[in-house]
Amino acid sequence: MTQTLAIGAYSESDIAGLKAAFDPIFLDTPADLAGVDASKRASIQALAFKGHTAFGGAEMDLLPDLKLIANYGVGYDAIDIPAANARGIKVSNTPDVLNDDVADIAVGMLLMQVREMTQAADWARSGQWKTGGEYRLNRKFSGGRAGIVGLGRIGREIANRLAAFKMDIHYYARSEKETPNWTYHADPVSLAGAVDYLIVALVGGPDTAKFVSREVIAALGPRAIIVNISRGSTIDEDAMLEALEDGKIGGAALDVFLNEPNINPRFYDLPNVVIQPHQGSGTVETREAMAALQRDNIHALMKGTALITPVN
Amino acid sequence: MTQTLAIGAYSESDIAGLKAAFDPIFLDTPADLAGVDASKRASIQALAFKGHTAFGGAEMDLLPDLKLIANYGVGYDAIDIPAANARGIKVSNTPDVLNDDVADIAVGMLLMQVREMTQAADWARSGQWKTGGEYRLNRKFSGGRAGIVGLGRIGREIANRLAAFKMDIHYYARSEKETPNWTYHADPVSLAGAVDYLIVALVGGPDTAKFVSREVIAALGPRAIIVNISRGSTIDEDAMLEALEDGKIGGAALDVFLNEPNINPRFYDLPNVVIQPHQGSGTVETREAMAALQRDNIHALMKGTALITPVN
Repeated sequence: MTQTLAIGAYSESDIAGLKAAFDPIFLDTPADLAGVDASKRASIQALAFKGHTAFGGAEMDLLPDLKLIANYGVGYDAIDIPAANARGIKVSNTPDVLNDDVADIAVGMLLMQVREMTQAADWARSGQWKTGGEYRLNRKFSGGRAGIVGLGRIGREIANRLAAFKMDIHYYARSEKETPNWTYHADPVSLAGAVDYLIVALVGGPDTAKFVSREVIAALGPRAIIVNISRGSTIDEDAMLEALEDGKIGGAALDVFLNEPNINPRFYDLPNVVIQPHQGSGTVETREAMAALQRDNIHALMKGTALITPVN
Repeated sequence: MTQTLAIGAYSESDIAGLKAAFDPIFLDTPADLAGVDASKRASIQALAFKGHTAFGGAEMDLLPDLKLIANYGVGYDAIDIPAANARGIKVSNTPDVLNDDVADIAVGMLLMQVREMTQAADWARSGQWKTGGEYRLNRKFSGGRAGIVGLGRIGREIANRLAAFKMDIHYYARSEKETPNWTYHADPVSLAGAVDYLIVALVGGPDTAKFVSREVIAALGPRAIIVNISRGSTIDEDAMLEALEDGKIGGAALDVFLNEPNINPRFYDLPNVVIQPHQGSGTVETREAMAALQRDNIHALMKGTALITPVN
């Protein structure tokens, strides 16, 4: 029988699902691997992986018979794919099942930011509505110009939703794609100069590190809003913080950050940032679907059939 | 020249627009009318009205030559239309220009409610993300069943947006309407029984008072969310508060209340309610468009041409 290891902070229902299917060994983080008996490590063939802590060649070498890393999540940037390839280890992820949820959070955060809904709620709850009158006027959301950075499956879901808000859709991708009548920009600086809202929906990993660069951020106007539901790594975070602090851009709405959950505390001092704790895919329904897809990939390894959603 | 009176809490830019066009007398509320000199009152032919304080026959009788009440807002339920009719006073409002904004707030509030975005933001900002891990899983938004009560212009804008979130659209209206493939319910109780989210987009006034009745609320399930962007009067507020307090429904997202801004304090004790301070149309762009439409109706009276957006 294929011996399975599970690494990460799983929910109770995910733990129950993994136990019923594989009765795996559970570890909190990759660092805990070193504490596992060598003979046990040598028996592991499948790894159910969850989390954002790096899993590289050194960790893989502690599991000499490993055949599959089944990642929980669409983003597998924590896993060193070249290192996996070099060792003949397959990697799978859980795409598509979370697209709707992540797109919903992107639109929700942008609405909260533009219409100042958190501040307006505080205005009502603190009694200022009674003493100070109406909450201050803010800014029209519908009809704006949205720029999607990365028109993959999630980017497209976001664009479809924003189009229903009568927005002009612009996008950057490596090549022009088939779209309703959206405007393609081959250069992210050009995209940034054309839009009110820049929504980052790139894959993570080294290829996209700081893709939203200081130069891209400088091309945004003083009323522009950055939305990020991808990975903290895709934006030059220092440049974004400076632009937010100096009023060079209007605001941000962020579900992802560098060094989560120990994010840069400068974000907490900014009134013009909507912060979410990386909860894009955090619904009961979607996490169940992600857990099922992770298990199905491990089942496929065991049965010797093709992985459902292979990465490499 | 037509003498104009302006009643209400106008913004600085609206005041400037009214001054430039009509140099009106400004009053804060209808109650201030009694303090105005009788000869001045007798000269007033046009009233630029803003606010939610009742303006009825008694107030109209203080303006014996009044020909037009140009309301700022689409909802004119503060104005007694039969009393205006009896006195030959025309009433205009400012429809359509605010539809997008109000629909945006409806969708934003519903997203915040379902994805618990305020609580998740607090989780991150309070440091619990660091000490307690991920924010708790919440509930998938896209793909839900939305029920629109009142498929007028605003209701339709809301439905179009929610359709882009892959929702099944159900609606109540006095008669079946032409729609993409939305489900008509002739009875609001039937509608409530069929949906996850009940969004109230009725006109205000006596005809729709407590239209969302105790019986309609009882037909909703324990996970159902009520959204109201219409008027506080359209819902049986006591029945809604009881249902929220007793867990008979899942939550609410409300931009409007009875007795604004002195709303029932029981709302503040409910963790499952998103509160907005009646800011549906509160954007700079839309308020400018509303003010311009209000002025254009007064100009039409002065020129003797047809009102742009007459009510009666």
